Amino acid sequence: MAEKITSRAQDYSQWYLDIVHRADLAENSDVRGCMVIKPHGFAIWEKMQRALDRMFKAKGHVNAYFPLFIPKRFLEKEAEHVEGFAKECAVVTHSRLKANPDGSGLTVDPASKLEEELIIRPTSETIIWNSYRNWIQSYRDLPLLINQWCNVVRWEMRTRLFLRTAEFLWQEGHTAHATQKEAEEEAHCILDVYRTFAEEWMAMPVLTGPKSEGQKFPGAVYTLCIEALMQDNKALQAGTSHFLGQNFAKAFDVKFQTQDGKLEHAWATSWGVSTRLVGGLIMTHSDDQGLVVPPRLAPIHVVIVPIFRKEEEKRATLEAANRLAADLCALPMGEWLNYDPLIVKVDDRDQYQPGFKFNEWELRGVPVRVELGPKDLAQGACVLARRDLPGKEAKQFGVPLAQAPDRIVEMLREMQAALFERARRHRDANTFEVNSYEEFKKKIEEPGGFLLAHWDGTRETEERIAAETKATIRCIPFDRKKEAGKCMVTGKPCEGRVVFARAY
Amino acid sequence: MAEKITSRAQDYSQWYLDIVHRADLAENSDVRGCMVIKPHGFAIWEKMQRALDRMFKAKGHVNAYFPLFIPKRFLEKEAEHVEGFAKECAVVTHSRLKANPDGSGLTVDPASKLEEELIIRPTSETIIWNSYRNWIQSYRDLPLLINQWCNVVRWEMRTRLFLRTAEFLWQEGHTAHATQKEAEEEAHCILDVYRTFAEEWMAMPVLTGPKSEGQKFPGAVYTLCIEALMQDNKALQAGTSHFLGQNFAKAFDVKFQTQDGKLEHAWATSWGVSTRLVGGLIMTHSDDQGLVVPPRLAPIHVVIVPIFRKEEEKRATLEAANRLAADLCALPMGEWLNYDPLIVKVDDRDQYQPGFKFNEWELRGVPVRVELGPKDLAQGACVLARRDLPGKEAKQFGVPLAQAPDRIVEMLREMQAALFERARRHRDANTFEVNSYEEFKKKIEEPGGFLLAHWDGTRETEERIAAETKATIRCIPFDRKKEAGKCMVTGKPCEGRVVFARAY
Repeated sequence: MAEKITSRAQDYSQWYLDIVHRADLAENSDVRGCMVIKPHGFAIWEKMQRALDRMFKAKGHVNAYFPLFIPKRFLEKEAEHVEGFAKECAVVTHSRLKANPDGSGLTVDPASKLEEELIIRPTSETIIWNSYRNWIQSYRDLPLLINQWCNVVRWEMRTRLFLRTAEFLWQEGHTAHATQKEAEEEAHCILDVYRTFAEEWMAMPVLTGPKSEGQKFPGAVYTLCIEALMQDNKALQAGTSHFLGQNFAKAFDVKFQTQDGKLEHAWATSWGVSTRLVGGLIMTHSDDQGLVVPPRLAPIHVVIVPIFRKEEEKRATLEAANRLAADLCALPMGEWLNYDPLIVKVDDRDQYQPGFKFNEWELRGVPVRVELGPKDLAQGACVLARRDLPGKEAKQFGVPLAQAPDRIVEMLREMQAALFERARRHRDANTFEVNSYEEFKKKIEEPGGFLLAHWDGTRETEERIAAETKATIRCIPFDRKKEAGKCMVTGKPCEGRVVFARAY
Repeated sequence: MAEKITSRAQDYSQWYLDIVHRADLAENSDVRGCMVIKPHGFAIWEKMQRALDRMFKAKGHVNAYFPLFIPKRFLEKEAEHVEGFAKECAVVTHSRLKANPDGSGLTVDPASKLEEELIIRPTSETIIWNSYRNWIQSYRDLPLLINQWCNVVRWEMRTRLFLRTAEFLWQEGHTAHATQKEAEEEAHCILDVYRTFAEEWMAMPVLTGPKSEGQKFPGAVYTLCIEALMQDNKALQAGTSHFLGQNFAKAFDVKFQTQDGKLEHAWATSWGVSTRLVGGLIMTHSDDQGLVVPPRLAPIHVVIVPIFRKEEEKRATLEAANRLAADLCALPMGEWLNYDPLIVKVDDRDQYQPGFKFNEWELRGVPVRVELGPKDLAQGACVLARRDLPGKEAKQFGVPLAQAPDRIVEMLREMQAALFERARRHRDANTFEVNSYEEFKKKIEEPGGFLLAHWDGTRETEERIAAETKATIRCIPFDRKKEAGKCMVTGKPCEGRVVFARAY
């Protein structure tokens, strides 16, 4: 607990790294661009996986697993897709190492050169649609609603823990449908799953809508996205759902017989969220004291710190702490925690003082802390503290032990709602309508945020804005006002505002 | 449902492949040696993961994630380990593809050659112990009890779906301890988790004990294993738990300060089970009609087939089927199903006849089938059928609908126990004490099985036996009789029998 965390005001980037390191979430590995996700960080990802997996399954999706390797010739088949991924990928060229003749280590054995190079999947459309060719013959085989949880690799040059790493973990859904309409509905249905997950589990409000042409997925007809605003007023793309049209069906020759006997190419979607969400969660809620995690995704929900000096006090407070922990773990939390029990930690370490423990669990983002000392115990009571509230507001004194479990569950639910509200208020307070390019350029510097502006719909103008201001179009919100206006750059007419921001 | 499944008697290997394909569990991909795990097969793996993950966590383990890539110099550090894995691995050498000048496709860009080659992890001891160096300073940091679920790659030349594939999915536990004793206890504790899982969830009896020196993991002091016997009397290594001593701590310089202030190398274990278990499950229980899955790991527990001709019959039977399904799904199954509900499928497809549906669900291994026709319904009853029983024995007629849920749960529990018993009887009936090498050579050809024989403990003799009979030492059972004897090959004295078999 040596150094302090850099404050957000001082250096937001460094603050983020400090949180990730000090809360023991992840670290850089010795492999360039690849991170080690440490147990406390991985636990958050596991909870995310479990919630999303249940939501996908509730909509009829099933999981499967496709190979890590993509033969080079598969990548070549969809032109835009190649363009998007060939420039930064890991290429496997050999299958054996041999000892150097002088015994000084290992060399790649030239004799083991592969006939065809293999690419580590940056995304799996190609290998999956190559399989679908054999799986889809008739309309009866459709829809195929398949998801996989896996690792992917994109050879990023500038990486940042969770937010952008060469290897990352994600889920990728790949569905095939008999009609365009059904595929488009699927793309929207999944976007709604993502929105629900972001808002109700991560307590992170998001905008929803399509990306501009310039920002869509390579190989998609269009890309829908959820976009969140971080505390430093930069945007984070948190999930995307692509309508792929018949592009991959055509590239991989996937045809099916329709109900009236015709042969047609299947319609496709793909969609994904990744460990980047963990970065988004950290940046949305944490503060200068450390990590703040929404209770529904917390690795540990409650920490109980028994306070004692004498041996007999230790015995009594520990006993009460363990009893309370057992009561908490026995509570049925239902769908709110995906039918998992509360995770409760009794911090009975002898070598540390209570104050040290309070700081540590605050740093690690445990939503509710229970303090249990001999004086509390004498009155059959305890002190509760909520992680997201400042100073004295955080504490409730003299809570009767018998009522503590219910009160704690209440606090967890309150905190979940409060985090969402706080993030929503921040997002709304930093969303601005901007009416001239001058104003835009000023505002994007300070305070940043989501800037709603008129744009003429061309890639040219979008690229100019990006080059001059580093702001990109984050999305064209579903719920935008129909409003005639003029492009802030070219003055051409347009029908509504789009959302710009600088982004991670 | 075109061709029949090859019978086990006719060709066991082909039978296995037929089951895997026809029950829609997995298929070969276009990437040499890599399989696609299809949804029905992956669902079994997911259930296995969930059960094992809970068991690991109950013993204090947590999950994390380490990089896919291992720098070549890491592999060089542990001599035996290199020897074991360098000869068959996927080597990443470049990070970019570029378009051929003539537009004919993609070429590896020579300018993107990596400074140091990266190996796709065949197992992660090296990269994990490289991280542990920074995580372990004091005895207070120990034990580290970490597991990861991931994919690994070993460039196998001869592959077989699930049993041996170039890429496979597994979990690998990597623990660090302050004392040898504690590390050895961990290795044994995990072996017991594996045994419990194999027997109680997979209904697959296993032998437990150490491997011989010749069969241990490259880099281990010793390897403990669980070994099962398949229906064709070949053995399957189903899980291993390694005591690694201080080998990796020394290779990666991982030292900690002991309670009395000395500096010592940490003690290690590693342990894993993989998607190979799905192959073991299939081979242990399935029959000539198709897949048989122990209920605790079944992707679908119950299928309800409504039987009807007229429209009004359809309405009534479907309604009753859906009501029964809802009742079944609402039953609390507790720890027996890891607190998940029963998965129930109502097969309401119009285009198929009931007989076709019965065959299909039999093929796919659903443990209990409910038949619900107008005559049954008129009596408020249904017919239940258990997948693992032959012919008429399988069926219970006229089961009152009100009692059906309880009766079905009973049947699932009975089937789970019966599968284990049947597999145990088969294993026991095919375990033989053998007293001469002549007898051994005969018996290993026919009937095969587990052969208990005296062996002089040398690698030389073990290799000779393997070369001459294709049988290897599967394990030195914990529970073997202390029994003075003479090696069947060399006549040298030994203290107990070891278990030989031909193995997958």
